[in-house]
Amino acid sequence: MTDKRLAEGPIRVALLGCGVVGSSVATMLTTHAADLAARVGRPLELVGIAVRRAGKDRSELPVDPALFTTDAAELVTRADVVIEVIGGIDPARDLILSALKHGASVVTANKALLAEDGPTLYAAADAAGADLYYEAAVAGAIPILRPIRESLAGDDVRKVLGIVNGTTNFVLDKMDTTGAGFAEVVEEAQALGYAEADPTADVEGFDAAAKAAILASLAFHTRVSSADVHREGITEVTAADIQAAKDMDCVVKLLAICEKTGEGDDVGVSVRVHPAMIPRSHPLASVREAYNAVFVEAAAAGELMFYGKGAGGDPTASAVLGDVVAVARHKVGGGRGPGESAYADLPVRAMGQARTRYHISLDVADRPGVLAQVATAFAEHDVSIETVRQQITDNGRANLIVVTHTAPDAALSATVDALAALDIVTAVTSVMRVEGS
Amino acid sequence: MTDKRLAEGPIRVALLGCGVVGSSVATMLTTHAADLAARVGRPLELVGIAVRRAGKDRSELPVDPALFTTDAAELVTRADVVIEVIGGIDPARDLILSALKHGASVVTANKALLAEDGPTLYAAADAAGADLYYEAAVAGAIPILRPIRESLAGDDVRKVLGIVNGTTNFVLDKMDTTGAGFAEVVEEAQALGYAEADPTADVEGFDAAAKAAILASLAFHTRVSSADVHREGITEVTAADIQAAKDMDCVVKLLAICEKTGEGDDVGVSVRVHPAMIPRSHPLASVREAYNAVFVEAAAAGELMFYGKGAGGDPTASAVLGDVVAVARHKVGGGRGPGESAYADLPVRAMGQARTRYHISLDVADRPGVLAQVATAFAEHDVSIETVRQQITDNGRANLIVVTHTAPDAALSATVDALAALDIVTAVTSVMRVEGS
Repeated sequence: MTDKRLAEGPIRVALLGCGVVGSSVATMLTTHAADLAARVGRPLELVGIAVRRAGKDRSELPVDPALFTTDAAELVTRADVVIEVIGGIDPARDLILSALKHGASVVTANKALLAEDGPTLYAAADAAGADLYYEAAVAGAIPILRPIRESLAGDDVRKVLGIVNGTTNFVLDKMDTTGAGFAEVVEEAQALGYAEADPTADVEGFDAAAKAAILASLAFHTRVSSADVHREGITEVTAADIQAAKDMDCVVKLLAICEKTGEGDDVGVSVRVHPAMIPRSHPLASVREAYNAVFVEAAAAGELMFYGKGAGGDPTASAVLGDVVAVARHKVGGGRGPGESAYADLPVRAMGQARTRYHISLDVADRPGVLAQVATAFAEHDVSIETVRQQITDNGRANLIVVTHTAPDAALSATVDALAALDIVTAVTSVMRVEGS
Repeated sequence: MTDKRLAEGPIRVALLGCGVVGSSVATMLTTHAADLAARVGRPLELVGIAVRRAGKDRSELPVDPALFTTDAAELVTRADVVIEVIGGIDPARDLILSALKHGASVVTANKALLAEDGPTLYAAADAAGADLYYEAAVAGAIPILRPIRESLAGDDVRKVLGIVNGTTNFVLDKMDTTGAGFAEVVEEAQALGYAEADPTADVEGFDAAAKAAILASLAFHTRVSSADVHREGITEVTAADIQAAKDMDCVVKLLAICEKTGEGDDVGVSVRVHPAMIPRSHPLASVREAYNAVFVEAAAAGELMFYGKGAGGDPTASAVLGDVVAVARHKVGGGRGPGESAYADLPVRAMGQARTRYHISLDVADRPGVLAQVATAFAEHDVSIETVRQQITDNGRANLIVVTHTAPDAALSATVDALAALDIVTAVTSVMRVEGS
């Protein structure tokens, strides 16, 4: 059977981009060629690698130098499978749309594009009867999109909690273990290659927000774009916040949170990225350094966790190649993978409607009636207090730590404003949401 | 498009078995019908449920009582998708083969049958052009087979380390936390429903061995059956072993281990189930109670871990339904999932050739020359010692704890025999392999 298939010729693969991930993909396509052919049923032939600069020395790659081209637009017209690892919106979008239009299936790691304009790509794939796969776009090597969109396709996913950005996890982990401040740790992360020279996309949560949009779209069968995601980064996380978490036996993590809220006709989704305290006993708390992990709660499956490397050339290439094998198998044997599934079309709730819990630390005067005033501020916003703890400080003042029950985020936020305005409150020293309990 | 597809009629689903898992499957098929139809592209119609006893009261299930039948052989001839959750070899095998012959795709949770006779089932599926899916056969709700056979299809899986049997993990975890002995904890597990009245299949490692065979077959593209798996259960794990592990900052787990060994022309696979010490810092060490987890090392992806519930009606049904959606999508849109992949056809090595590490605890005489005799026994078997620790006990004797480097298991085993035969060795108090370092 294999011989007959081989006689039909190889699957032509075009690679767009030859940076860290592209180099790993090109290398694996070459060195694993025999295994890939056996798994697909036909050889995969790398027919071209589109690069921006033609002259760069790429002699360390085990590929024919004649494969490099600066004409990506031409390359996509002569492939059965197009791998896009350029990143960013332009020219990646036009190249992917052109590839699909020419009948190629597309494998991409482009989280930004998928989160901004996924439905356009899906529509083009549907029109062409081609596949659009993107496992590498979220959490690198960790198989998480295929499990959500295929393994859990018979279940009701209620919540996804992900550590999906290695840079911010490295920074928060170092702040936790060393007590150092944000700026100092970012410098260390840059020196070690864990953070970019301009770390904005990571530390401000843009990268995690794109991944949250992709996760939520798949988990809830609902279109969610980056613009729908409430986003707060970690630049304002202080050593005091980290210490406050420690005092609660918690750690601070930047979480991508996708949650189904309400019941019956009132079901909606909340999609957000923000730092949060989680208990040290939670499986996500032990995710250290630049590792990623995604925690999923489904009605029947219960709690699942997926853990591994979220970035890097080889781990990301592993995810890309898994998708390449899948779409190439479809080219050989027929059929298509799942397309867009947005039938549920659930409303995306504003952040103010999300039900969250707050940990609030206040410096207050140490005199009678203070606790009553503070408690009144919570009550006036219908926020129920779970625990309150008071510590007397040296200067005759007190530190008050309040953890709330869940309440609408808007009510919690308004409570913090009201507390800050009280005469007896000298400073709101730490405000952080609490997740995972 | 959906309307046109609906006009083609529903996908007929037959359910074989209505125990704990079957009841959950039947319930989810009914209560999630609208979501399942949207995700598949056509409704799933439950056309019959095969049971052994007709008269049993099943009124708590939200299904038409007329669906129950004792004629499973007839039922499989009138379905597009057959779900087999009876378990065991007979009559499950004949029913699955008949279903495939009649063109139905099959979803099964039957680890014993797959591990004993998987190639026969695959051949029947190939002949019929039908799908054979079995995510629920290993680690219940945890998506692990689809990630290995699809997500990692472009990678080189080197090792799979799994806690795939909840009963034994519960027992070992309780022994670790309470210090109790094996027999006592098994009784507790039985009382709590975590162990069967006859716990043999679990505690002797038969269940884990079947799962190891399935994992190894997929990971290494090589046929591995239950009979190929070296199997040791946990019945001989003593409180002393657990304490010895604690002293090493380790825990004892029953592991399913699938490993690629050697390089180049000498590549083979080792597949084994046995208790082993793993460091408390290893991600598998924190898998408590009846939870399951599978740790995977691949050349490009690096280390991955998958964690969740390994058993129970709803979690297993979640895995079954995910597969049902996948094979039903193929019925609607064409194509098939991956079939058997055994092209690598690697030799399965005997246990003696597996490279393992041993932790050995000995009671010895406390006099000059003892350590030299012990060390000589190791050297004579070409076994290199990593650490040795001596504790003087009350009775003027000594306890010697040796941890080896990796060596062929046969050499380690022979070393233990040689040690036991030495005059100066009073007792070999604990022997256990060490993994995960």
